[in-house]
Amino acid sequence: MPVARVVVDVMLKPEILDPQGQAVQRALPRLGFDGISDVRQGKRFELEVDGPVDDAALARIHELAETFLANTVIENFTVKVEEPAVGAEK
Amino acid sequence: MPVARVVVDVMLKPEILDPQGQAVQRALPRLGFDGISDVRQGKRFELEVDGPVDDAALARIHELAETFLANTVIENFTVKVEEPAVGAEK
Repeated sequence: MPVARVVVDVMLKPEILDPQGQAVQRALPRLGFDGISDVRQGKRFELEVDGPVDDAALARIHELAETFLANTVIENFTVKVEEPAVGAEK
Repeated sequence: MPVARVVVDVMLKPEILDPQGQAVQRALPRLGFDGISDVRQGKRFELEVDGPVDDAALARIHELAETFLANTVIENFTVKVEEPAVGAEK
């Protein structure tokens, strides 16, 4: 059965304070890394989907992300289909 | 000053148990979402970089991710430059 990977990225909205990201950003100069003006930390979900990722499946995953993975009051999310065959990253 | 965004994705290695992802995956059928065979949860860092993102800057961010953002004993990470101008997502 073909298995496709769909990635859901969940990030705090820009207007929401991100203490985790701030902690990282403030630690960087102490560790010798300059030139990073802002850091935001969010969540990445990798979903392995059975069967084809058609419009219906993507709509379902969008609903899933909206109702379950993200708190849309304070977070934005994006849904992306990842091609596993390309896979030059790591 | 031009500001570029670099994204560092940190995911547990495939051979490492991911209880957070498992919890999400097991909850999905109860919530009416079928056809998701696996879920892995990781972290996404969005870094705003001052100045150009050249090879030297990317090498620095790679080192930063390796030493500070990821625990490379149990986690893999990827570094990607994001084009803010394309920005059709949200």
